[in-house]
Amino acid sequence: MTVNVNFSGNYQELVSPELTERLQTIANKMNDGTAAGSDFLGWKNWPSTIDAELVSRIQETAKKIQQQADVLVVIGIGGSYLGSKAVLEALREPFKSATGVEIIFAGHLVSGAYLKNLMTYLDGKEVAVNVISKSGKTTEPAIAFRFLQDYMEKRYGQKAAERIYVTTDAEKGALLDVAKEKDYARFVVPDDIGGRYSVFTSVGLLPIAAAGYSIESLLSGAKRAEQELVEVHTDTNPAIQYAILRDHLYRAGYPVEIMAVFEERLTFVQEWWKQLFGESEGKEGKGIFPASVLYSTDLHSLGQYVQDGKRMLFETFVNVESVGDDLVMQQAANDSDELNYLAGKSLHEVNGAVQQATAEAHLSGGVPLITLSIPALDEDTIGYLLYFYMLSCAYSAYLLDINPFDQPGVEEYKVNMFRILNKPGY
Amino acid sequence: MTVNVNFSGNYQELVSPELTERLQTIANKMNDGTAAGSDFLGWKNWPSTIDAELVSRIQETAKKIQQQADVLVVIGIGGSYLGSKAVLEALREPFKSATGVEIIFAGHLVSGAYLKNLMTYLDGKEVAVNVISKSGKTTEPAIAFRFLQDYMEKRYGQKAAERIYVTTDAEKGALLDVAKEKDYARFVVPDDIGGRYSVFTSVGLLPIAAAGYSIESLLSGAKRAEQELVEVHTDTNPAIQYAILRDHLYRAGYPVEIMAVFEERLTFVQEWWKQLFGESEGKEGKGIFPASVLYSTDLHSLGQYVQDGKRMLFETFVNVESVGDDLVMQQAANDSDELNYLAGKSLHEVNGAVQQATAEAHLSGGVPLITLSIPALDEDTIGYLLYFYMLSCAYSAYLLDINPFDQPGVEEYKVNMFRILNKPGY
Repeated sequence: MTVNVNFSGNYQELVSPELTERLQTIANKMNDGTAAGSDFLGWKNWPSTIDAELVSRIQETAKKIQQQADVLVVIGIGGSYLGSKAVLEALREPFKSATGVEIIFAGHLVSGAYLKNLMTYLDGKEVAVNVISKSGKTTEPAIAFRFLQDYMEKRYGQKAAERIYVTTDAEKGALLDVAKEKDYARFVVPDDIGGRYSVFTSVGLLPIAAAGYSIESLLSGAKRAEQELVEVHTDTNPAIQYAILRDHLYRAGYPVEIMAVFEERLTFVQEWWKQLFGESEGKEGKGIFPASVLYSTDLHSLGQYVQDGKRMLFETFVNVESVGDDLVMQQAANDSDELNYLAGKSLHEVNGAVQQATAEAHLSGGVPLITLSIPALDEDTIGYLLYFYMLSCAYSAYLLDINPFDQPGVEEYKVNMFRILNKPGY
Repeated sequence: MTVNVNFSGNYQELVSPELTERLQTIANKMNDGTAAGSDFLGWKNWPSTIDAELVSRIQETAKKIQQQADVLVVIGIGGSYLGSKAVLEALREPFKSATGVEIIFAGHLVSGAYLKNLMTYLDGKEVAVNVISKSGKTTEPAIAFRFLQDYMEKRYGQKAAERIYVTTDAEKGALLDVAKEKDYARFVVPDDIGGRYSVFTSVGLLPIAAAGYSIESLLSGAKRAEQELVEVHTDTNPAIQYAILRDHLYRAGYPVEIMAVFEERLTFVQEWWKQLFGESEGKEGKGIFPASVLYSTDLHSLGQYVQDGKRMLFETFVNVESVGDDLVMQQAANDSDELNYLAGKSLHEVNGAVQQATAEAHLSGGVPLITLSIPALDEDTIGYLLYFYMLSCAYSAYLLDINPFDQPGVEEYKVNMFRILNKPGY
């Protein structure tokens, strides 16, 4: 398995015949379409059934974007940007640019300074835009697209249409209408896949391909996950194991999960994970609150709280077994910093010691620990990892008797906002 | 006051004569040096007593760095980097460079790829280094400095010493010894100011000045805060008010505080705040767990959990009254995105509506709300804000009967790590 799960406690004693039966029932209901929210289970078989022609079309479009532009501005919010952002950051080596175009996100905030300065930044560069919105009416990205569409038309005139790519509903919606009218290239947000499960659709794939990464490898990792994680094997299926552990820890009085990473590249996988689990489970007064830390820097920050603060936390470490570039500690003539004892060790080995030391320290402080190990940070592994999380999240929410696929609470601020802003009809 | 506090509940009924007396006792003990951890209260009168010659010397050194270098690599972890990082990010307008040198942080992680690629990145640029460590033996920055010192000496030979700036203990320590031996310019980490309270010392000021920001304005904001917030006035002192509210909410069953910002520039003030409060309060099985969100993007992520998840959260909004650059929504010929109702409104106004709408939504979902309002994002305001947090944090921890100024839990992973790595003596 590409993801391996370890637990600081006794996992075996958490697995009862009743629990296994509940999980099997959940699996059956997802398969036969009777689970809550089954209309949004399109992500489940997506990696094995994605249209090869769609993948080719995305790759060709990505090539075209790379030829015509230096920068691709990706307009989206929530699931329309977190998936591609997570993959891009996980794959990007520090201080290196991607081989394709530079990706800049917009429409995830309402900020005049951000948009205004972005447009100034774009002035010296060739630009393309990918606007991603199922309805075309979500306020934040719609505002950003208004300004950027105007910018593109002023700058490129009629030719702007060749540089604007729309990812939206197949059949209806404001953005689809504009795309048809202006003859923008179009990609589809499937009806049966919600935003936070959309990273393997055009929503995530077009920006990732444009940046120069292999969406074939990403999808093949996801497909392997889909196939390997299909059976409810409590002994060997890491998605089932992670769901069982989370459910157990939540019920045992640990309502806060801290995802700890030791590689800065994974910090947006953390943000994606927060949306996935927080938005899927945080309903009806229930759910684990997802938080994140980057060690070892945060060992000198939230580490103190984790070690000794209020006991309501469990941690999930993401362990990356092998990193690419590395450095080896050398013997120094003057050992005033007292680091010569590390000579011959790679920094990845030292980082591994930080991880093991932290695990022991936090365990002794009363923090249960789950460890997810992955082999590397490449497209295939990240594809596998994200599918693993999506599947495990579904089981985890169903174990709480929560529909993982709706987000009723997101509407409330929108309705208030429309009223405050005097939108007609509110 | 530069920071104004608002609360969704009835603040007045939380203030009793007993509580006021407790707070006055805390203030008295801090003043006469009998409070727990009083050896580390040097930050309290620092803004009003900082040596003008030190400020001049930092400014002159910053100018020298700007003349000799394109990039200043700042090596530090925890309080040795979060303060300057928070200020730099808060002041930096999106897509704009600072007027001074580029600042890149190192030594906050153990990553060979990061350091190796950083050195490649530096190859085409003129470089200076500021290494910040009280003892010189903290593993992460010590490793980074070993590699970067070697890099600088290979690249600049004897002249490397003119480009390396050391911020360390005044009297002793490994880094001081090296600085003396090599004749590096030196700045002092005061003995009576801990890392998370050190932003107004040379630790924070040198990188901030080198980046081109006004440390005089930063310090004058902090000094005004020191003077305005000195008295225990529960009606008018925002530091006292914030401490009272946090203490009340913690005891009322809300152990998680979410600091919500609506400006991306404040996300590292959030990281600094997490260290300040988490490391000061998270002891003896007590303390509020500090978490953070960036709205409106996270309204499409953790927003669902905040609205409907497990009820243990309160929120603290940071409201910025005025931003600099902005854009105004225009009437469009084709209103297919249905945004014409916003015509004439600035994006800052729309963002204000998002904030008000979110406050109402989350309140109706059972999330108590504190709002901290600040006028702008400039040096003076940020200086005031950070001092406000530091002072309020001290009161808040003392109200929990916690010493705000130690961090016993940070040592545990270090001891384990030295053992695992076979450091002599462990």
